[in-house]
Amino acid sequence: MTTLPRPPYLLAAAWLLPIAAPPLVDGAVRVDPDGRLGAVGPRSALSAAHPALPIVDLGPCALLPGLVNVHAHPELTLLRHALEDLPLHSWIPALRARTARWTPEDFDLAARWGLVEALRAGITTVAATEASGASAAALREAGLRGVVYVEAFGPDPARVDDAWADLERRLAAVARHASELVRMGVSPHAPYSVSDALYRRVAATAAERDLDVATHIAESAAEVELVRRAEGPWAAALRARGLTVAPRARSPVDLLARTGVLERAPLLVHAVHIDEEDTAQIAASGARVAHCPVANAKLGHGVAPVPELLGAGVRLGLGTDSVAANNRLDLLDEGRAATLLQRARCADATLLPARQVLRLLTLGGAEALGWADRIGSLEPGKDADLCAVRLDGPHVRPVADVEAALVHAARASDVVLTMVRGRPLYDGRRVLTLDEAALADVVERRATELSQP
Amino acid sequence: MTTLPRPPYLLAAAWLLPIAAPPLVDGAVRVDPDGRLGAVGPRSALSAAHPALPIVDLGPCALLPGLVNVHAHPELTLLRHALEDLPLHSWIPALRARTARWTPEDFDLAARWGLVEALRAGITTVAATEASGASAAALREAGLRGVVYVEAFGPDPARVDDAWADLERRLAAVARHASELVRMGVSPHAPYSVSDALYRRVAATAAERDLDVATHIAESAAEVELVRRAEGPWAAALRARGLTVAPRARSPVDLLARTGVLERAPLLVHAVHIDEEDTAQIAASGARVAHCPVANAKLGHGVAPVPELLGAGVRLGLGTDSVAANNRLDLLDEGRAATLLQRARCADATLLPARQVLRLLTLGGAEALGWADRIGSLEPGKDADLCAVRLDGPHVRPVADVEAALVHAARASDVVLTMVRGRPLYDGRRVLTLDEAALADVVERRATELSQP
Repeated sequence: MTTLPRPPYLLAAAWLLPIAAPPLVDGAVRVDPDGRLGAVGPRSALSAAHPALPIVDLGPCALLPGLVNVHAHPELTLLRHALEDLPLHSWIPALRARTARWTPEDFDLAARWGLVEALRAGITTVAATEASGASAAALREAGLRGVVYVEAFGPDPARVDDAWADLERRLAAVARHASELVRMGVSPHAPYSVSDALYRRVAATAAERDLDVATHIAESAAEVELVRRAEGPWAAALRARGLTVAPRARSPVDLLARTGVLERAPLLVHAVHIDEEDTAQIAASGARVAHCPVANAKLGHGVAPVPELLGAGVRLGLGTDSVAANNRLDLLDEGRAATLLQRARCADATLLPARQVLRLLTLGGAEALGWADRIGSLEPGKDADLCAVRLDGPHVRPVADVEAALVHAARASDVVLTMVRGRPLYDGRRVLTLDEAALADVVERRATELSQP
Repeated sequence: MTTLPRPPYLLAAAWLLPIAAPPLVDGAVRVDPDGRLGAVGPRSALSAAHPALPIVDLGPCALLPGLVNVHAHPELTLLRHALEDLPLHSWIPALRARTARWTPEDFDLAARWGLVEALRAGITTVAATEASGASAAALREAGLRGVVYVEAFGPDPARVDDAWADLERRLAAVARHASELVRMGVSPHAPYSVSDALYRRVAATAAERDLDVATHIAESAAEVELVRRAEGPWAAALRARGLTVAPRARSPVDLLARTGVLERAPLLVHAVHIDEEDTAQIAASGARVAHCPVANAKLGHGVAPVPELLGAGVRLGLGTDSVAANNRLDLLDEGRAATLLQRARCADATLLPARQVLRLLTLGGAEALGWADRIGSLEPGKDADLCAVRLDGPHVRPVADVEAALVHAARASDVVLTMVRGRPLYDGRRVLTLDEAALADVVERRATELSQP
């Protein structure tokens, strides 16, 4: 635990990872009163340049930009471990049956509890894709940075107006919490839950109002079957609801192109089942990708072609997805999984080295959210969004390679500081903004109540 | 942290996972003075049956059998993070160049440091495959259970006698530390480092002396190329040493059959590149498999066909491999990775559910090491080898499914008790047998010295 003085002060650590530059032994940053980084460099140089400033020494830690989680559903945290071992086309209806009984307070509780975990894991930015939009207030209360993509649902083209009215109502509720740290966007959910007409409506309105767009796309083979051939379990489920199902496009990504969504350069969540033509379309559109390796693997969807996407110049960050799929909001763990899954897929031991993973977890995520001007690297003028991770545990030492140590050995439990815009939110012992103990008392009890048949 | 009385006493926890039976809420075990489990069951029943015994309540924890790591190289722990992003045919020579400079004390230090990590991760049994055999003394000092497979090397069939004499010398050194808790075995290293003649010698002697055998097999595509066609990077490396290289067998597993090794029902480490015929040969021989999902993925080898092996009735446990590959000795993490990699490989969200993973981590491992009569499940009469894991962290709650919580959310840092044969070795705060602080002081310094060119 570290007690921090009022800015300005110097924050020093055994290793500094600016991300935009190679790691530095014995580095430091200057945290300024405006919440920005005034200087970044060797500790000796900074302390010589600022002899009057107090120095906080984090000791055997790595100091790096805060981790950026580009895809999560904090509103679902009460469903942790509740939907195990199901394929997505069974998982989604099970999830809907469960959340149908929730009150707005349940979503709020879930969102706050998820953000407690995020803060303890060194995450400073969370992009939440949500029906309730509960994360907007929760992010503000937690002091976190984030984007809340409010979800639109509606597979029935005859009911686009209803779907849209419902979305507008929830967008307005989220807008009340928007700030410089909490942005809002809109998210047509997925091809199996959104009609082409609703995709078009969302795309047109996002263009009019300059709203950021995210969408789940090309997650499963079943989704490709639905879009390309109107077959498979999703097609059967839609037909069972009395809807007409016909082939819609060459691929899920092509469906986004045909409905105008891709023109919005959206955040594409998953992008597992894409081919070369899709990759080219994504790259040409300027769309970004939220890669969720753990959820994609655990739900049996496979592994997204990350090297191919990066090779095509696509901006890409990592997301945890919801704890109903994953089961943690642990971005360090997600980075390690990304490497393992990619190397197993491609039979190549050189893919996604730790340096590249750390970039994806920070600057890559910032780029994917359109926030790279403010966060993602430790550079003078950027906001002091950062985290510190202890590297002296017996599971980490010896630290021959600080980047590999962070990605492949350190755990979220080694995080000792999480800070957004100069404000400490987690000090290695307790979360400073949310009342973890009070939330913990309620979470288990309420989740149990809600799970009763 | 928990202070334990002298046995007999009852050890109670919010969840008990006997493995041989379904999980129990509010369970307990009786730890007896002979280090065995005298009783296992509901807490209320045990306390009613033993009203005079003290009860130690572990609180919001899962109590389960100690984790069994069926493949590790603790002697290499000084090489953590030192050999990143290399394919195996470059990794092995790099490893050899590094360890060539080590003293016996360096291997001892590495082994002890690796076991500190194992104890903190809830691991109670470690199968160490080693050149030095340093883990024998280290296991004894740590109070851990284990097997030390002493490695034989020698790709030159003209030098089998030298290779054998060298192995005999090291076997004798390890034998001094053998005990009821520390067994010994022998390990012809791998097809690219062991000639057919040396495989035959090891198999024959293992039969004579009833020695357990382990071998790295079918790890990489390059190994298959060497064995089947005398091609690829391993063939080139052997030819560069002046050795004759010719096709040796249909497959690496078939090579073991032809040299008499498979008749010993050995522990097959890796078994990634095996086909249906190999699986049938393995099953028919009674051989066991050490599955190391993280190392296999990270080195770009792929994913072993675990459901196929289990379907054929093969006994299988999980191993971490060395921290020069992995980079942790963290078996809970290995279990999670096993699920993710298998589901990504097979596009099936139902594979390796948490209950099955927990069985592989405990009873499966015990079976793979021939120790299932004493460990691997919590049953009266078995040894009190166990661990306890806290499940009240914000990354774990709510605990809708205790098995999923353990495998997919809990971390080694949540382990609060590790015990072998009734002797507590780690109490959630400190390792009670090895001097962690003294080792930590030396480890980083010595690793740095040894890494200098």
